[in-house]
Formats: sequence, C-alpha cells, structure tokens
Amino acid sequence: MSAAVNHIKLYTCGTPNGYKVSILLELLGLKYDFHYLNIRENEQKQEWFLKLNPNGRIPTLSDTNHSVSGSDGSDGITVNETGAIMQYLVDKYDTEHKLSYPIGTKEYYLQLETLYFQMSGLGPMQGQANFFSNLAPEKIPYGINRYTEETKRLYSVLEDYLAKNSKNGSLYLVGNHYCISDIAVFAWADALHVLEIEMSEYPLVDKWYKTLAALPEVQKGLTIPRASVYAKKG
Amino acid sequence: MSAAVNHIKLYTCGTPNGYKVSILLELLGLKYDFHYLNIRENEQKQEWFLKLNPNGRIPTLSDTNHSVSGSDGSDGITVNETGAIMQYLVDKYDTEHKLSYPIGTKEYYLQLETLYFQMSGLGPMQGQANFFSNLAPEKIPYGINRYTEETKRLYSVLEDYLAKNSKNGSLYLVGNHYCISDIAVFAWADALHVLEIEMSEYPLVDKWYKTLAALPEVQKGLTIPRASVYAKKG
Repeated sequence: MSAAVNHIKLYTCGTPNGYKVSILLELLGLKYDFHYLNIRENEQKQEWFLKLNPNGRIPTLSDTNHSVSGSDGSDGITVNETGAIMQYLVDKYDTEHKLSYPIGTKEYYLQLETLYFQMSGLGPMQGQANFFSNLAPEKIPYGINRYTEETKRLYSVLEDYLAKNSKNGSLYLVGNHYCISDIAVFAWADALHVLEIEMSEYPLVDKWYKTLAALPEVQKGLTIPRASVYAKKG
Repeated sequence: MSAAVNHIKLYTCGTPNGYKVSILLELLGLKYDFHYLNIRENEQKQEWFLKLNPNGRIPTLSDTNHSVSGSDGSDGITVNETGAIMQYLVDKYDTEHKLSYPIGTKEYYLQLETLYFQMSGLGPMQGQANFFSNLAPEKIPYGINRYTEETKRLYSVLEDYLAKNSKNGSLYLVGNHYCISDIAVFAWADALHVLEIEMSEYPLVDKWYKTLAALPEVQKGLTIPRASVYAKKG
C-alpha cells in the first residue's frame, strides 16, 4: 500500500453512504481529514459544496496526492458517488489487491455487479424503507410495507450471493477475501436495525456482518464523523 | 473495435435498463442474440434465470467470446447490473475509447460518477415515480409527489452536469464525446414522457437527448426487444 500522506479530504456525515468511504479509508491505512456536513441542516446544499458535488449529497472525496491526468489541467481530483469513490481509492491505493480484484478478471466483474447491486438496489430501497418507517411526516402503511418487503427480498438476494460463494469456502461476496462491495453492503447492513427486519433471518448475512463488524478498522470507520444521524433502536 | 462474432447473449425486455445495454451493443457494432423475458409474467423469476442472476432482474449479459480469467475455471462470463455490464463491454470491446475513457484519467472517474448517479439516483427514483404515477394499485398522492419532485431535482442536477461540461464546448456529460454514462441516462430520459415532467424545462438535457436519439444505433437499440413494456403517452 502507498505511504500514508494527508491530502485526502472526505466530506461526510454519519450515514451508511458516509461510512462506506471512511471504513475503506481506514482499511487502506490512509491518513485523511474529514469535514462534517450536517445534513439535517441541509449543509450539503450550500453553494460551495454544490461546486464540488452538483447533486448535493454526501460523501465527496478530494485527493491532491495524485496528479490525475485530465483535460481540465488542474492537479488532484474530486470524486462523488460512493461507488465511484471506492473504485477510485482502490485503483490508486490498493495496488496489491487486498480490498479489490484486478481489472479484467471474473472476480472484478462480480465485484462490480455486487457493488452496483448495493448502489442501485439495496441502498435506495433500504433508504426508502427507513424514510417511510422513521422519517416521513405522515404514516403511509403502503410505503412502509412496499419498501420493507423489497428490502427483505434484497437481503435474501444477498444471502443467495453469499451462499453461492460459500461453495468456494468463502465467507465474502466475491473471491476469497472481502472487497469494496462487501464494505458498501456492510455500511447499509449496519443500519438495518432501524427497520422491522431481523438480520438473523439471513444466517449467512448475519455471520458475514459480524465478521466485518469485528475488524478494528471497520469500527474506527464507523466513528467518522463521530455521531450518526441514523436513529438507534433501544 | 473487435470483429463481430456471435457469442454474446442479452436477456432483456423493453425497459430503460434493458435499452441501456442494447443501445451500447449497437454502438459497439457487436453481433448478439437476445432472449426476451416477459417481466409482466414474472419470467425473470424462473429458476433457470435466477441461476444466472440471483436478483431476478433484467438485463443479464453472457459472453463466451472472451476467456475471462477467474477462479471458477469456466469459459466465458455472465454479468448482471447494467453499470457492471456496461463497464465490462467497454473494457473488452472499446479499446479505442470511442464510448468510454481510459482507466485512471479524470474523465474515467467522472464517467463512473455520472454512471453511479444514474444507477443509484435517477434510475431508482424515476422508477418509483413511474410506479406511483402509473402502476400502483392504489392512488397515493404522497408517493406520486415525493418521487416526481425528486426526479425533477435529479434532472436539474443532470442539467448542471451538462452545463459544467458545456464550458469545455461539449454537449455530453463527460469529455468531448458521449460515453456509457450518457447512454445509461439516455435510456431513462427516453421514458420521462410517462411522467408529468416536461423535458423542455431542462434545455441542455433536451438538446443532449435529441442528439443521442437521432443516432441510428440508438434507434436500433430501442427496438431490442421489439416491444416496450413502458406505457406510451398519447
């Protein structure tokens, strides 16, 4: 891995999408600064931040360690969307492929498939389930039910992915070690407790979750920033 | 580009996600077979298909042209999730970078950012807007409004991305030519007419959409399969 230097800046807050990147940065052993944006106060919609991220969402990562070639002629890079940020970080800092798989291999494309599964399915749908269950100003049973049921279905798909790879003797989504797609899904699984869904109904997911949750780097990543905006049960 | 051979198979139906891949295959000039799955009859949940795609969603792509190295020892590859399929296809068949940007460049990471923007934001939210507006068994004004407003916001973000790159004299999302993220977003923009949203309110999007829609390969891609399951207005 690259030597730790300090020109990486993470704009974040305590949500699953934020934690994906802080966990990955910790696992990569990189030094970074973080800038907390209070999304309850809509700080991510301030003009200075929209210049970095037109979508006004966290997290955003900027990195001036690398001179990334590109037509705009500037040094460094700013990347948005957690899937893209994670691909960027492993391209630049995981050259030994401890948290990713080499481009062109089957494992690489299964890594992408499961990363997009999280980005396009599990994340958006679990996010909507949380919204209708815990945040919506009106109680709309149809919305609660629709997204809770879809989230359950997606966790059963996750169970199927893990079952398929368990035949190769692996505990993880792809190949024989955890990778960026495990980290991406983990950050959402870590917020499952705010829904009426029991992780223990998905035994392989439950074991996989506990294994990842026990890693010191994962625990550290979950403290960046130090307070979660996700309500905790009980 | 690679010589056209015929060992690519696309499992698809007439939805934005299906069209992304058929449009890309046409633009790459590749020969392929397609297998139509009637999602209204839940054919994508049949056991044989779930073995290819645990999530039971279209499209899925299999390719035996390339012997892709991987630990399972089999020839060929099956890829799910449109973002992953598109990344696979350009890695293998767009070595001249006519529809993609080289890995490691700024354009590559902006291509990923805008592809994930489509996959995690615009697609899921526009999909929910269509569901509540046109498909839900009950009329739920809160759902219609929530997702229609979010879709509008996302098209204004798309307008911002295009405005940013128009300063470089480009009509497209990234760099100086269209790429896989343009194709991904285009397939959803093509279905915008089923919502109460006027594309003309986003002038750069409107111009970009019409430019892409005029390409013969795009028109051909929109006929694979030959009937759309998306209701057409008027």
